[in-house]
Order: sequence, then C-alpha cells, then structure tokens
Amino acid sequence: MCELLGMSAKLPTDICFSFSGLISRSGQTGPHRDGWGITFYDGKGCRIFKDSSPGYESVVAGLVKTYSIKSHVVISHIRRANRGKVCLENTHPFIRELWGRYWTFAHNGQLKGIKKDLKKWKESFGFGHQPVGTTDSEAAFCYLLNRLNKEFGKEPRNKNKLWEYVANFCHDLSKKGVFNILLSNGVHLFSYCSKNLYWITRKAPFGSATLKDADISIDFAEKTVAEDVVTVIASNPLTTDEKWDKLQPNTGILFHHGDIINRYESRERSVAS
Amino acid sequence: MCELLGMSAKLPTDICFSFSGLISRSGQTGPHRDGWGITFYDGKGCRIFKDSSPGYESVVAGLVKTYSIKSHVVISHIRRANRGKVCLENTHPFIRELWGRYWTFAHNGQLKGIKKDLKKWKESFGFGHQPVGTTDSEAAFCYLLNRLNKEFGKEPRNKNKLWEYVANFCHDLSKKGVFNILLSNGVHLFSYCSKNLYWITRKAPFGSATLKDADISIDFAEKTVAEDVVTVIASNPLTTDEKWDKLQPNTGILFHHGDIINRYESRERSVAS
Repeated sequence: MCELLGMSAKLPTDICFSFSGLISRSGQTGPHRDGWGITFYDGKGCRIFKDSSPGYESVVAGLVKTYSIKSHVVISHIRRANRGKVCLENTHPFIRELWGRYWTFAHNGQLKGIKKDLKKWKESFGFGHQPVGTTDSEAAFCYLLNRLNKEFGKEPRNKNKLWEYVANFCHDLSKKGVFNILLSNGVHLFSYCSKNLYWITRKAPFGSATLKDADISIDFAEKTVAEDVVTVIASNPLTTDEKWDKLQPNTGILFHHGDIINRYESRERSVAS
Repeated sequence: MCELLGMSAKLPTDICFSFSGLISRSGQTGPHRDGWGITFYDGKGCRIFKDSSPGYESVVAGLVKTYSIKSHVVISHIRRANRGKVCLENTHPFIRELWGRYWTFAHNGQLKGIKKDLKKWKESFGFGHQPVGTTDSEAAFCYLLNRLNKEFGKEPRNKNKLWEYVANFCHDLSKKGVFNILLSNGVHLFSYCSKNLYWITRKAPFGSATLKDADISIDFAEKTVAEDVVTVIASNPLTTDEKWDKLQPNTGILFHHGDIINRYESRERSVAS
C-alpha cells in the first residue's frame, strides 16, 4: 500500500512540516520505500519532484523538506509497490493536461480490471490519455480523464457537474478495490476515501503541533496570518497533538482555498459502467 | 530570446558541468532571467525541475548543478521572455504524454500565427493537447503532437517515418519565424536548427574542458569509461577549449545514445499546410 498527503490553502502556504512527517514513512518510520513524489501548483503551472528511491534517503526530498515552496494546492505520495515494478514512471503523483490545465492524481489502494476498462474504452473511442507506467493507479487516472473529456468536451462552467461526475466515477471504481485518491486541476483539491483518509483544517486561532514521525514541532501562530485557512489530508494523521477527522468510507470531498465546498456521499448515477 | 541545452548519452551521464555553464547565463553572465527548466529521462519516466525565477539565484537549480542525476537524454532551457508573461506555466521544457511516452520540448525563437494554426486544427479535429500557458512555443509543441497523433494514430514501428515527419513539420514551422528546438520521447533526442545551435560529441580518448561562464574545469577522462559517448547541444558553445560544430540552418538532426543517427536537411513534403 501507499500513503497520501494533500493540502488546500487560502493563501500560498508551504508544506515543509507535513512533508517532513510523511517522508519519514518512506523508509525510516514506515515501509513505503518504493518511491515518493510531490506536486506544487503555482498559478496554472506546477512543480513536480519525484524519485523511485526511499524518500527518507533522497537528496531531492531533503530539499523539499527544508525549502519553502508556497502553494494553494499540493499533492504528495509515498509508495509501497504492489502493482507495477519500482521505477520512476510508476511513481505518483501522475500528471496530464486536460482542457488547458494540468491535472494531478495520486492513489492508495489496488483496483481489479481497470486496465481492461481503459483498453475497452480506447478501442471504442480511440484517442485519449495512455499510461506510461504499469500501475493500475495511472490507468485509473487516464480512464477518468478520458471519460471526463468524452462527457464534457471542454471545461464545464458548472463546476458542481464536473466534480459530481468525478465523485460518481470514484463510487463506481471503489467497487473494483481500494480507491483512496487525491486529484487536482490546480484550482480545486478533490479527495475520495474508499477506506482510509484523515483531514484537519487549521485556521485562526492557530496552535502548535508535533509530528508523529520526526522530532519536529511547529507553532503555526508564528508562521501564519489571521486570514490563513489550511486543510491537510493524509492517509494517517501526521501529528500527535491535534484532532484529525476521518473521512467516511465511500465519500468524496471537494476543497477550495482550504475550505470544504462540497461532499459527495451518495451515488447519483453510474458513469463507469 | 532563450537558450537551449540538450544531451544524448550512450551510458547514463550527469549534466552538472554543462548545466553549471548554462544556468550562469540565467541572470549572471547572460540576460535569460525569466525562468529555467530541465528534464532528465529515467527509463520511461522523467524528472522535471523548473522555476520562473532567474536560474542563477534558484535554490533548486543550485541542487541540479551539484547533484549527479544520470540520464540518457536531458533537455534544458533558460528563458528570456518575449511572448507570454513570466510565470511557471510559460517555463520550458514543456511535457505531454503521447502513445504512452512522455514527450519533452524546448524552443528558442518566435513564431507568427502558430496559435491560429492550433485553433484551426482543434476546430477541425476536436480532442487534442492544449497549451496551459500563453507561449507560442507550447502552442507549437501541442500542434506537433496533435498532428503526429493524427498522422500515425500510434507509435510507428518505422522510426525514420516518425522523425522525417517531425523534421518536415519543423521545416514548415521555421517559415513562421525562428524555430530552434529540442524534442525527445525519452529514446531519441531530436534537434532542429533554424538559426543558431552548436553541438559537440565527447568520446574516448576524453580530454578536459573549461566553462565559458563559470570558473569550472573538468577532466572527462576521470569521470568517464571508455565506452561513453556523450553529445551536448547548446544555443552557444559552453566551453572555451573545445571545438563545437555549428548546425546548418534549417537542418534537423536525430541523436540516439550520443550518436547522430539521421540528418534532415531537405524538405521532402509539406505537413503543416
């Protein structure tokens, strides 16, 4: 299995503290030694850092832990390989362009039959995104983007319709296995929990926090301004002295600038059949 | 204008020396302060580092200068903005997936009318890659990939046909302005020179070299093995004591594992009309 880390923030915020906790689990305090990656959005562009080696030993991860890169949306992942060999092309997050935006996806879990679904789809509709690596995760991501493009053609003005479609797709895919994901187009951060995801929103009055996996504490009051709203999502809580909320199984949740703007708890209609 | 740097190597090789020279031109010895980027291929995957700030001052570029990342194919770019504002999404190299491979593109020059060409193409054929930023360079890249996909549908077995098509596309686009480019799918490195590109192949017996833009010398004999073959391509020679070859204007050249495997000097047929 793998672990996910996501952030949605009202004002550009760095993730050095949370990433320091997560990356310790990539070979030191956790078994997720098979690669790590992180995407930081900056306007419509993004920065991606990744490695197929343990994050705990990675020189590049060392930079990401200490160098403050501020962003509204961040998605990170540490990998313990189950499907697909250990190599850079199988390292999350995955990224593709759709409708003139970069979409980023990271997945925790395993899916049965998703590669066949993507193959069938391509046979029916031809052109579309294809996986570069061999993970079921990247196949699911390409399948989702291809279906989105077929459904909407271009970015829909009604964002609720877009994310409702994504949520229903996730409801359907979660029947094929475990499908905990983080997905973003640089504006919104969408998370789907089929089994195991936690989140916390930090806003004024800010307190302090201590990491579970590294001897690091932080006083957010010193690092933030009153307007800050920062939500962090993780496969397992990263701190010992804060209350993290557990997402309900089979629930999608949409964040924008640190706030929850929608939840998708029931399945309105099938999109993956 | 901008500057390009590319590498094709028989054995995985780092580019710390050449990149140290290039990046000095991004704000110190040269005016290319408006962003920098580099892509390293590793199997079918790749690592991308980029910034919209001057490379000379960039903490991330500082890491890339000193941290040995070995690769068969590298593409790098430093930007002096002419079309498109200074921001991360306008920073080269650009990357897209086609036929299950990541394609990387960097451009030096300006093109007239390429955004209209891409718009027309999309109106006629619908789905395809779209620019995220506002540069004519990214539009040209998306246009090329869309045309390749329409022409071949999937990766052609006959690689000569593929690269001949690319070369003819470049011949046609070079009529719209200056079109010096580096393009790779992770296997081959293709370079098109409409005006200004230099290259050098280093192989045994290896000598030493000194950078033009930084007080750094290297003895390649100490860093290499006899089998190494490394070709470096740059907008302007990076060293003072080696002989660089100038590419002929309106010529495409295809490298694999450090060797030239084809040249495209004449225009067989129009593909961009």
